[in-house]
Amino acid sequence: MLNTIPSASDIQAAHNRIRSYIHRTTTLTNSYINGLVDADIHFKCENFQKVGAFKARGGINTVLSLSTDELGKGVATHSSGNHAQAIALAAKQAGCKAYIVMPSSAPAIKRMAVKDYGAEIIECEPNLKARESTLQQVVENTGATFVHPYNDYRVISGQATAAKELIEDIDDFLDVIITPVGGGGLLSGTALSAHYFSNKTKVYGGETEGADGACRSYKKGELIPQLNPPNTIADGLLTSLGEKPFRIIQKYVKDILIVNESEIISAMRLVWERMKIIIEPSCAVPLAAVTRNKDQFEGQRIGIILTGGNVDLGKLPFE
Amino acid sequence: MLNTIPSASDIQAAHNRIRSYIHRTTTLTNSYINGLVDADIHFKCENFQKVGAFKARGGINTVLSLSTDELGKGVATHSSGNHAQAIALAAKQAGCKAYIVMPSSAPAIKRMAVKDYGAEIIECEPNLKARESTLQQVVENTGATFVHPYNDYRVISGQATAAKELIEDIDDFLDVIITPVGGGGLLSGTALSAHYFSNKTKVYGGETEGADGACRSYKKGELIPQLNPPNTIADGLLTSLGEKPFRIIQKYVKDILIVNESEIISAMRLVWERMKIIIEPSCAVPLAAVTRNKDQFEGQRIGIILTGGNVDLGKLPFE
Repeated sequence: MLNTIPSASDIQAAHNRIRSYIHRTTTLTNSYINGLVDADIHFKCENFQKVGAFKARGGINTVLSLSTDELGKGVATHSSGNHAQAIALAAKQAGCKAYIVMPSSAPAIKRMAVKDYGAEIIECEPNLKARESTLQQVVENTGATFVHPYNDYRVISGQATAAKELIEDIDDFLDVIITPVGGGGLLSGTALSAHYFSNKTKVYGGETEGADGACRSYKKGELIPQLNPPNTIADGLLTSLGEKPFRIIQKYVKDILIVNESEIISAMRLVWERMKIIIEPSCAVPLAAVTRNKDQFEGQRIGIILTGGNVDLGKLPFE
Repeated sequence: MLNTIPSASDIQAAHNRIRSYIHRTTTLTNSYINGLVDADIHFKCENFQKVGAFKARGGINTVLSLSTDELGKGVATHSSGNHAQAIALAAKQAGCKAYIVMPSSAPAIKRMAVKDYGAEIIECEPNLKARESTLQQVVENTGATFVHPYNDYRVISGQATAAKELIEDIDDFLDVIITPVGGGGLLSGTALSAHYFSNKTKVYGGETEGADGACRSYKKGELIPQLNPPNTIADGLLTSLGEKPFRIIQKYVKDILIVNESEIISAMRLVWERMKIIIEPSCAVPLAAVTRNKDQFEGQRIGIILTGGNVDLGKLPFE
């Protein structure tokens, strides 16, 4: 178990560990969007990652870090989203059992994806308390190791590999990298990778008015939980910032920028229409932040991590 | 003007001519879809092409083939779709004028895209007769060269370069290449490229029940115009097969496979959900044909040309 903020060699080790289990996702640019914001944006396409999101990185790194004894008892988590699929896939790859606690309200398509990886689904009432108590029960009964979606340095080391690849794959120096921030696993990992592997690159987080707990925590210097209930189309950003990511973000992140819901939908539509790729609303937050703060980012070389592409095509925000 | 069926060196020359003006689009695979159809499918992503469709290839090749005199008078066409944008872009690249006759019913977003490339739009009544007579007027007034969207060997040579790249970029031998067929420019060009550059690869067309003119022409051995009005979500396939493409298709295409509308929507959804890329309904026809004829294609290595990604996000067929 990794108990301190990941070092450069922890991140390198994570990358070596997961390399053959994940996609080294492509980086795309779009001249129309560059012209619009007068900057040079490189989009790291984690929507093309296994399970359709960067979460595969942290999940696989953590599961592959477990001892043979731990693997023998399996892994467990609660999630209705990308982390559930990431852990189910990681367990399949590691040849261990996965117990996924999912709220009864989770869409059938997400349950099916988890089941397809061979995981066992334990249904619970659709609230956080039920999720946590059901998970605890599962862990007690099975001895499985709980893998937290973001408040874990192994998970953070795994998520850090996305920015590491981005830095390696762009020949030129990136002035800025921006990621969305929910629980903080990706943003903190990205900040560490920039610090270790591209020291002069500034890292920003992007968050939405409807769920701005990370920004408020960052400004105040102490952890403030997400408003309850947070209200945003960016369903990947609903979670509260974790304590471990927060420590890293405080130290290594330049700022957290806020956008509103219509800016998210516009940026999402821009990417769909111009780049012809499918991204989740959360992914659109960094581009919305660049558009909103055009003066600040003008003329810069910017890396944006497109976090995932899992959207319900029957419920799109376009008119 | 190219007056005979393009040779291998005509296609090679077209490729050299357009190479620096187009994207060499990527080829993607998807293990989930491969598992579903029990085949090894390589998707050539012309949805990532300039103007969002393969049409850029034929348009640019034709415009760049014109003499200095012809270029001085500009180019003209009628189209409300991807060909309009292709000619507008080609004219911009060649530094000549473009006159695009568009029906007054064309969506504002398509008019804007054409205008953004600096083309002059001439509006007409939304029917084929008005489009043709308005175009004739424009050609008489300006001396511009009419570029037909598919019934032109220069256009066919340009479209042929998509399959040429696909053949070059896949290390292994492709058993089959499948493209949709509307006017026939892409299918005929693909058949020629396979014939010249991968002689044992079989080429199929894919068409829909709602607009099956090419299939009926192919079976009967003579040109049968599209039903009027054809009825399909695959708006790229509404046009009638051209005489020049027809001659090539008769000779070099193995078969034209028919799918229905719900098979198109299912295949389109499969690509959107699993590959996280945006394709037009027309593009989904080849995958729908593979799924429908699973026994025929089982175990084969298949190239599919994803023709374009220009869809109206406000009018999607998903529930």
